[in-house]
Amino acid sequence: LERALTIAICGLGTVAQGVLELLRNNASVIAARSGRPIRVRHVASRSEKPGVDLLGAAFTTSLDSTIEDPEVDVVVELIGGEEAADLLVRRALSAGKSVVTANKAIIAKHGDAYLRLARDAGVAFCFESAVAGGIPIIGALTHGLAANRVRWLAGIINGTSNYILTAMAQSAQPFAVALSDAQALGYAEADPTFDIEGIDAAHKLTILASLAFGVGFRFDDVYTEGIDTLNIEDIEYARQLGYRIKHLGIARLVAQGVELRVHPTLVPEKHMLASVDGVMNAIMIHADAAGDTLYYGAGAGAAPTASAVVADIVDIAKGTAVPWLPATHEDSGLRVVNMKDIHSGYYLKIPSLDKPGVFARAATILSEHEISIEAVIQKEQAVHHETDRAWVPIVILTHEISEGAMDKAISALEALPDVVGPIKRIRVEHFADV
Amino acid sequence: LERALTIAICGLGTVAQGVLELLRNNASVIAARSGRPIRVRHVASRSEKPGVDLLGAAFTTSLDSTIEDPEVDVVVELIGGEEAADLLVRRALSAGKSVVTANKAIIAKHGDAYLRLARDAGVAFCFESAVAGGIPIIGALTHGLAANRVRWLAGIINGTSNYILTAMAQSAQPFAVALSDAQALGYAEADPTFDIEGIDAAHKLTILASLAFGVGFRFDDVYTEGIDTLNIEDIEYARQLGYRIKHLGIARLVAQGVELRVHPTLVPEKHMLASVDGVMNAIMIHADAAGDTLYYGAGAGAAPTASAVVADIVDIAKGTAVPWLPATHEDSGLRVVNMKDIHSGYYLKIPSLDKPGVFARAATILSEHEISIEAVIQKEQAVHHETDRAWVPIVILTHEISEGAMDKAISALEALPDVVGPIKRIRVEHFADV
Repeated sequence: LERALTIAICGLGTVAQGVLELLRNNASVIAARSGRPIRVRHVASRSEKPGVDLLGAAFTTSLDSTIEDPEVDVVVELIGGEEAADLLVRRALSAGKSVVTANKAIIAKHGDAYLRLARDAGVAFCFESAVAGGIPIIGALTHGLAANRVRWLAGIINGTSNYILTAMAQSAQPFAVALSDAQALGYAEADPTFDIEGIDAAHKLTILASLAFGVGFRFDDVYTEGIDTLNIEDIEYARQLGYRIKHLGIARLVAQGVELRVHPTLVPEKHMLASVDGVMNAIMIHADAAGDTLYYGAGAGAAPTASAVVADIVDIAKGTAVPWLPATHEDSGLRVVNMKDIHSGYYLKIPSLDKPGVFARAATILSEHEISIEAVIQKEQAVHHETDRAWVPIVILTHEISEGAMDKAISALEALPDVVGPIKRIRVEHFADV
Repeated sequence: LERALTIAICGLGTVAQGVLELLRNNASVIAARSGRPIRVRHVASRSEKPGVDLLGAAFTTSLDSTIEDPEVDVVVELIGGEEAADLLVRRALSAGKSVVTANKAIIAKHGDAYLRLARDAGVAFCFESAVAGGIPIIGALTHGLAANRVRWLAGIINGTSNYILTAMAQSAQPFAVALSDAQALGYAEADPTFDIEGIDAAHKLTILASLAFGVGFRFDDVYTEGIDTLNIEDIEYARQLGYRIKHLGIARLVAQGVELRVHPTLVPEKHMLASVDGVMNAIMIHADAAGDTLYYGAGAGAAPTASAVVADIVDIAKGTAVPWLPATHEDSGLRVVNMKDIHSGYYLKIPSLDKPGVFARAATILSEHEISIEAVIQKEQAVHHETDRAWVPIVILTHEISEGAMDKAISALEALPDVVGPIKRIRVEHFADV
């Protein structure tokens, strides 16, 4: 029998506890698949948790001691947060330890540095658990689709947002009610900013795009919009038009470079992503040889995340984790496309005075900006949640046009005397290759 | 730079041509991800194909010469068929070559022998392309879900059957018309037996179950039923009951062992598998830590299959293919459950005389066999495709019961004087953990 793989688990939150539980419950299958036992030598955290089985590991409050121990092969970073976690990962890699981490925020920001450190030390840097929890999406990109050039990927990669949008769509709950329900159920944090403003999804998109396109970890270049400006009315109009509204992370290779964007999106109701509900995640990848593939599952939770953390540990144990991640695309100097240059269809909700000729004037302005209309919702079909309001919404679905042209058209529309407020714009995705 | 990985491609059919094309078109990304170039040294087939770029390889009609060449690292078996392919794989592994194959039939029958040969020789035996084409499902089971005990998996793993069922459901085409359309489009073979009788799906289920449960390759133990007995009427009744009919491969861990079965199945319309249409494949896996994950994509075609073949080659090139597959479950001596002992819900279509009291008598017999009724389709809702027939169908959906009990109930029902023909039975799946 080969010697055990020795690991240190840093952090003792819900994911770390899930990892300890999984290593205990499935010890025999994990050892069989690893070809050798996994031994937890240290568990490092601020304070011990009574009742948590440390599997015989020594508890320590010193992260340093795990790095300094020459017996430790792998440091599992599950402390969360950013500064201390970043320091831990850098020090562990520099000390020649392989690192497994679920920390999407630090990878999205410092992933390039981590990969360089891992390469220089000849150790593995693994993060299957950082994106979409139990779905093995990192493996799909780095192994299963290794022969492909990825054209685009699009994913529902924030379970909290998807839970809220599903509740709004299926139970007609206003955003605030759906959010507080999600908080009560533990699907949203007390401070839900990262989830509902799209930052968490932007972290994950950064990681996916880096692997798919070899553009590096470009978190600062991701255009990010959350779900906090959506209301039930938009969801209902979208449904009338044959769409669902989903919060998507989209990365797409186009002539000018790579689009990186996170925003609410109208998805055709027959598309697989439209039927991904509740806290579930799914990512569709369009690649040149494999075509469309989709990966669906639980995006969060202690057990699914632990499943991915331990999968990385098993890969390291059996020697099938790449010592460092290979280049995923030619180092082509791909640039991130400016948001003004992306092309998309648009859903527009124009708050207008209920007078004759308003739609005709709006249509003329769109036409002047070379924007063609795909569908319109007539006034009679309009949803009136506020029956006393003095305006009616004109809802228009447009064909594809550049964001820059749409910006100008919206400015012109908002300057119309009949338009009484800001125009709501939601992008529409048809998942076409460009 | 490391030395090139040298491969021999055996076969020159559509998949082999797809592999050559992919190796040429994506040479730079493939080399970058492999860490070294892939060199095709031999292409072996019965006859050369004019116009096919062999990438500088020597063409040969001798399979032996590829095995005997000490320069060759990997033999890629794409000759198809069974006897010659089986011999090639055994000889290549024995000669210390790693083997990549898309040949599900020989793996389903001889996989255990191949894995032993690979283990003894310390080489890799890879078959990502053998199941579900471009979907990296083998990687999901062997890497992504390595920390899990799989509870069950269920998949649409034959694109031809799914195409035919989709056409029957969406265009009300009779089976024979949908089949001949599928043949015209190249989705079905001239002799469609393997696809429509479920044999191809049984090959793939054998492979998935072997990886998921460590039961070995038990093709002969798979219960197999095809789609050739389904008609539009069944699909329409299922729809009225809230279900779609899909041809599924199901493997499930139960107290008595592992269920292995391939048959048409009623799937709740809201389930993700219900919306997988046309030639697409999808597999849902329920595992103890990751929960439900689903993998969707093209199950066949030259490019998707080539994508998986080359993914295996890349894994071998960069050293991340396991030299041989590890045990995937405890060697627990799991047995394959006898079909009489499986539990399922059932759709029953009982051809009956149009007389009062028939349904009551049928319900009494089911009750005597402790089978409870979930739903019934009333006579008035019945679909009459043959308006001149002298009987009416009674359609009943039952709760879960053992297949053995259902067999007895069906015999008793068929003995009723009011029942005028054989009873159609289709199993119903709710994807519950047992």
